[in-house]
Amino acid sequence: MSDWPILHEYAASGNCYKIRLTAALLETPIERREYDIMKGETRTADFLANVSANGRIPVLQIGDRFLPESNAACFWLADGTHLIPHDRFERADMLRWMFFEQYHHEPNVATLRFWMRWIGVDSLTEVQRALVPVKQEAGKAALSLMDEHLAVHDWLSGPDISLADIALYAYTHVAEDSGLFSLDDTPAVQRWIARVAAEPGFVAMGV
Amino acid sequence: MSDWPILHEYAASGNCYKIRLTAALLETPIERREYDIMKGETRTADFLANVSANGRIPVLQIGDRFLPESNAACFWLADGTHLIPHDRFERADMLRWMFFEQYHHEPNVATLRFWMRWIGVDSLTEVQRALVPVKQEAGKAALSLMDEHLAVHDWLSGPDISLADIALYAYTHVAEDSGLFSLDDTPAVQRWIARVAAEPGFVAMGV
Repeated sequence: MSDWPILHEYAASGNCYKIRLTAALLETPIERREYDIMKGETRTADFLANVSANGRIPVLQIGDRFLPESNAACFWLADGTHLIPHDRFERADMLRWMFFEQYHHEPNVATLRFWMRWIGVDSLTEVQRALVPVKQEAGKAALSLMDEHLAVHDWLSGPDISLADIALYAYTHVAEDSGLFSLDDTPAVQRWIARVAAEPGFVAMGV
Repeated sequence: MSDWPILHEYAASGNCYKIRLTAALLETPIERREYDIMKGETRTADFLANVSANGRIPVLQIGDRFLPESNAACFWLADGTHLIPHDRFERADMLRWMFFEQYHHEPNVATLRFWMRWIGVDSLTEVQRALVPVKQEAGKAALSLMDEHLAVHDWLSGPDISLADIALYAYTHVAEDSGLFSLDDTPAVQRWIARVAAEPGFVAMGV
């Protein structure tokens, strides 16, 4: 068994990328194991029994323990480091943006990217097709809320980059992939995207 | 301005209840301000400008700072207390269940409760009606994943009650309200519900 944490992942997933980016900014080595979700490789009996009963990636393996949920894995990696604010309010506020990401942003911005680019509009179910405009509107509202905040703050929580920025960077910087969002509508978000990408140790998504 | 944190809430909401339950178990006094979401009281210009640009409750006000997202508010209240595990893995694992709650549980179990009991099946949009069976299936999967875990553990993360239990208790113990879930299917969840309710300082949802 490796001494390093093992990331069970699908490299094109923004949720997996969050964890790689956190590890990169912290210079923490991790081992990577790739699964092709399009071929159902996270739904095999072996994966469900030995990695995660939820059948989803990412999962961060630490020794013989398994941590699903991307933002929880980022928290484990960054616990005690500068990526989690020391101030009590800012720490909770960082989590506020991370819960916002999972509830208001990812199910809209990331899901539409997956539907339009991976599944393809012609292969969507009828319910999914009916949801496209609903998710587009909700995704725009999420990006706009970020933009309002970033128009007057460099980072989402506190004076420096934190896990909140990493969690939201993952799917925001590729929001246009779905063809349904334009980052031209959110100039403060665009400047923040450049700020994240300029951080020492930054790695791009495809790597 | 009150010295106590102020909870901006709608009392029937499980997301607001999580925060009250956390405060009660910690014996932390909070002030409560009620808004009727059915009358749009969180969408007024005053609320959007002075409480939360997201137009949603709960928001926890700490002095002149505002914290949206129920699970972040619980974290602020419990930071440094026994409701957050000291062990690094267990702390991240607690967050894992809290992110699971917001991504896999609340949008299904809580949304169906709201749709069926507050809005009413006849007033749902066509898209919402088409989503009922989709959300019912996903909600059952979430409850079943909890049940598998609780069949062999007393609490969701670590050896004692934590914020993970509080976050998931809120909508799980009223999951049957929608008429679409039966807790008879998840006996370990039923025993855990009784365990949470037996905690010293516990307050019920309607209070």
